[in-house]
Amino acid sequence: MRIALIGFGVVGKSLVELLEQQQAVLRDRHGLAAKFVAVVDSKGAAVGEHGLSAGELLAAKAAHGTVAAIPGHGLKNADANRIIAESGAQVLVETSPSDLKKPDAAIGHLRSAMSHGLHAVTVNKAPLAVAMPALLELAAYNRVQLKFSGTVGAGTPVLAWAKRCAQGNRVRSLKAIINGTTNFILSNMTEKGLAFDEVLREAMRLGYAETDPSNDIDGIDTAMKLVILANHVMDRRATFSDVQVKGIRGLSSEAIESARARGNVVKLIGRVEGDRLSVAPEEIPQNAPMNVGGSLNAVTLDCEVGGEVTLVGRGAGGPETATAIVRDLIDVWRDGESKR
Amino acid sequence: MRIALIGFGVVGKSLVELLEQQQAVLRDRHGLAAKFVAVVDSKGAAVGEHGLSAGELLAAKAAHGTVAAIPGHGLKNADANRIIAESGAQVLVETSPSDLKKPDAAIGHLRSAMSHGLHAVTVNKAPLAVAMPALLELAAYNRVQLKFSGTVGAGTPVLAWAKRCAQGNRVRSLKAIINGTTNFILSNMTEKGLAFDEVLREAMRLGYAETDPSNDIDGIDTAMKLVILANHVMDRRATFSDVQVKGIRGLSSEAIESARARGNVVKLIGRVEGDRLSVAPEEIPQNAPMNVGGSLNAVTLDCEVGGEVTLVGRGAGGPETATAIVRDLIDVWRDGESKR
Repeated sequence: MRIALIGFGVVGKSLVELLEQQQAVLRDRHGLAAKFVAVVDSKGAAVGEHGLSAGELLAAKAAHGTVAAIPGHGLKNADANRIIAESGAQVLVETSPSDLKKPDAAIGHLRSAMSHGLHAVTVNKAPLAVAMPALLELAAYNRVQLKFSGTVGAGTPVLAWAKRCAQGNRVRSLKAIINGTTNFILSNMTEKGLAFDEVLREAMRLGYAETDPSNDIDGIDTAMKLVILANHVMDRRATFSDVQVKGIRGLSSEAIESARARGNVVKLIGRVEGDRLSVAPEEIPQNAPMNVGGSLNAVTLDCEVGGEVTLVGRGAGGPETATAIVRDLIDVWRDGESKR
Repeated sequence: MRIALIGFGVVGKSLVELLEQQQAVLRDRHGLAAKFVAVVDSKGAAVGEHGLSAGELLAAKAAHGTVAAIPGHGLKNADANRIIAESGAQVLVETSPSDLKKPDAAIGHLRSAMSHGLHAVTVNKAPLAVAMPALLELAAYNRVQLKFSGTVGAGTPVLAWAKRCAQGNRVRSLKAIINGTTNFILSNMTEKGLAFDEVLREAMRLGYAETDPSNDIDGIDTAMKLVILANHVMDRRATFSDVQVKGIRGLSSEAIESARARGNVVKLIGRVEGDRLSVAPEEIPQNAPMNVGGSLNAVTLDCEVGGEVTLVGRGAGGPETATAIVRDLIDVWRDGESKR
């Protein structure tokens, strides 16, 4: 399987390492031999039709900050869309940085790939949050797979699990704690009685929060993931603009304290209920399965038969996200094999 | 898709009702039209190559205690294995009552089906607990599907979720609360400070425990499910005799109380760790994601990348188990379609 990888940050590097480590397992168990025929980072690219060496990719990035430094394979001025089209790749893996304000480059990569007949695997939320219905249609039209397991829950297979629950049953509603940073902040406010600003500073110091934390604390990240869940699990053709979003910025210690007095905790919860998609801080009972501490994620589905089921797991991390990409690659490969 | 159904108790009836209800969805979304060409209950059978009517099956069972009462289709002296072989069914659904002491009839049905080229869907734990490695081999040899989603977690897709976690990652160990009856007993002893015998009587009165509760309270049910998890998720070719089993019979209130003093709760936990499969009451921290109340189930996997993930949901119920069968039927159908 020939892969073009766009983005060579934490997730991209973890993927290259993981595929190298798991080579034997993937070959023996799935008949899958994966190689990178192109890798694009923010400063350039490397291409090699017989597959680029994992060692060389990682060494060039570490020493020179770009894979363009690999002798004989590096390209300084690389146009990602041209590389996607001309690399001979069968699958695009999209891990470039993108946020809700600038989703266009990543959307462009996905479009280029799919219209050239490549399958696409993305861990980028923003393109799906703004254009998931259109991208799913494009995939169907071009008869290619569009996979995005790593966008929600990182390595915890939230989307596959939820889809499975929906098969042979109906998911009536969904509620989700799917942003580790805000859950870390709320857990610490609750357990240690600290103020919002204090915990936010601590979260930044520990690397749980970005220098600009608005994506997390204003509920944007939760809303993007909610859109993906709603489309994938409940067949809602929603985009980001359909979500009512309220974050936790400046939440008072009093709110936390008075919730506690009622036997509750405050969590930032994304909900799909009826036609409504919303993100807001909410009180839930202390003994609810969704009351997960630290930076954990939790998703609860209310199913027509059987009631509530809850999945709890870590929702972030480069190596974790890379495992989701590997699962997607295995699925794409199997699907291709079964059609042969 | 032509189905032969063995066993027409709570689960079997729920399945007939569910397939009737979901007819339109299954046809529109999956291209699947399911019909029952044979149904076998404890007193007889009904066969009909053009499909038996759901209404007639349920009415005959309600009025006469057997589907053999359906005019023109009923058979009084029915040999299940012969019906499996001669009914023209493509899939066997096995829901007959079976326990660890008498797994042979159900194993026989599965063997008959698979050696005649039928796919098999079972919700029976006992055959898998004693012979899962052999049955998986038989399925592979005959190139048919053997599905068993409903054996663990009823409607909660524990097995599919865990398998998904293992794809592209490695499950290092597994611990599971997978018996609702014992969890109900332990939750009530903990929350209400009652004695074991008292709660067991209450559980029987409410229908949470059988008249002979040994299957549950001696850990046998948990051990059977653990064998299925170990085979499916961690590729251990284990059977019931490989499990060290200790139940909760006669557990003292003092044990519960002293656990509480340490900030812990007592749960009946099945574990796969290294080469060891075990079932025993254990203390876990009160705030662990696995500390689930009532009759809930919880399964925690420890993954090489990403650490622990936990799934919480109901683990019993006829209609719930029927949704698992429908999911398996959809999978069998899709797999067949993709090979055409």
